[in-house]
Amino acid sequence: MDSGRFCLVLILSCLISGVVSQSILQILPENRISGDRKTLLRDDDIFCDSWRFSIETNDAGIWYNIPARCVKFVQNYMLGERYASDSDQVAEDSLTFANTIEITGDGKDAWIFDIDETLLSNLPYYEIHGFGSEVFDEKTFDEWVDLAEAPALPASLKLYNELQRLGFKLILLTGRAEFQRSATEKNLLLAGYGNWEKLILRGASDIGKTAEMYKSEKRKEEEEEGGYRIHGNSGDQWSDLLGFAMATRSFKLPNPMYYIP
Amino acid sequence: MDSGRFCLVLILSCLISGVVSQSILQILPENRISGDRKTLLRDDDIFCDSWRFSIETNDAGIWYNIPARCVKFVQNYMLGERYASDSDQVAEDSLTFANTIEITGDGKDAWIFDIDETLLSNLPYYEIHGFGSEVFDEKTFDEWVDLAEAPALPASLKLYNELQRLGFKLILLTGRAEFQRSATEKNLLLAGYGNWEKLILRGASDIGKTAEMYKSEKRKEEEEEGGYRIHGNSGDQWSDLLGFAMATRSFKLPNPMYYIP
Repeated sequence: MDSGRFCLVLILSCLISGVVSQSILQILPENRISGDRKTLLRDDDIFCDSWRFSIETNDAGIWYNIPARCVKFVQNYMLGERYASDSDQVAEDSLTFANTIEITGDGKDAWIFDIDETLLSNLPYYEIHGFGSEVFDEKTFDEWVDLAEAPALPASLKLYNELQRLGFKLILLTGRAEFQRSATEKNLLLAGYGNWEKLILRGASDIGKTAEMYKSEKRKEEEEEGGYRIHGNSGDQWSDLLGFAMATRSFKLPNPMYYIP
Repeated sequence: MDSGRFCLVLILSCLISGVVSQSILQILPENRISGDRKTLLRDDDIFCDSWRFSIETNDAGIWYNIPARCVKFVQNYMLGERYASDSDQVAEDSLTFANTIEITGDGKDAWIFDIDETLLSNLPYYEIHGFGSEVFDEKTFDEWVDLAEAPALPASLKLYNELQRLGFKLILLTGRAEFQRSATEKNLLLAGYGNWEKLILRGASDIGKTAEMYKSEKRKEEEEEGGYRIHGNSGDQWSDLLGFAMATRSFKLPNPMYYIP
């Protein structure tokens, strides 16, 4: 595209965004509509970007909902290039680290992967459920899981295959429950994942535990009973990564849609 | 600004950015100049935003330099509204947590603050030293420290005062060396900080330790010998926050300029 055409597109998108911003402003509370409309929207963008910084660094701690003014921001982030780009960068960081590990050949060099929003993307579900802004509905989400149609997160699929090629044993550790095992296996295979070492789901005795406790306990078991050396751990939630029996390096994937303690 | 004027500004900035992008492109290596120039610059923005995600979440691990294509991005981030906004958000998260702590009144409820890029901003120094893109020069930085002219990070000054009002004892734990004590105290006072409980600098026995080790050891001392309960810890480096004797909650402030192990 040459400069002239680019400018034309800018002007058009400016006019379109004028219309969109007007309709967004109509649903804002009265007291927020003060001063300059453009400033208001730019402020939202900066506010939401800072909110994202705060949740992704875990500064926010527990959070329950996307701030109302950031739903559109999260939608744009998830559907635009930034989510894919951030995921690519995390995968690249992970692989850089993985390449520094000497694989011993005893089959005990392990890497842990979470599933939802890590190996598999539930974006098709969240797209029709407000990108996490709606109250989580277990029933419809379980129905979605049963469909086994979640696509792979492309960056993670590539990393998964690379790690296998390097000789890592891949342990999948998910908050999904045992009754979802077959749907989960089916979905993973359809999405292109294969040859995992283990797939660990929440059993009866894990119900009611926080994800951080459940996952820490399982990592500890794999280390102590399985004899695995957990070099890396990839997850979109801090509760996938923190606690005890932590991996040598933990990799936080982006997820501004929801928080699991 | 009305829509029409906003569009005019957009068109003008479009034309100006055309000129700027051309001069930036001239210093890019040949193989990067492929396809659409605008796409290239938008790609830089997305790339740099993902790079920032990766360093701020600690996914990147050790890093030495801002990627060459992100120097301008870091400059815009630091000098624009985003750095201030992100810092405000972290301070707000910190205060939300602080308000949940019951202060016992025995004077042992503590909060730790790092100094550089946490309480004090060295932005005036880094502005004339490439925003961290230049190799760190101890000599000129020490001269800058001696001037004692670093301004407060506004969000941190506000948080500092609020925490004191709540009854926290504030322990300042910095990578600066003992010989910089008086310049540091002078600077802190000039910037508006006062009544800290302790100011801990690197002593002779701390030289050569990583920041993470040095700071972990000092936190442990404060807990075991000082009897403090370290509720919160604020720092711009992961090495301010991780290791052992970690605070109940750690708060990562933004810093895309440099990394300290």
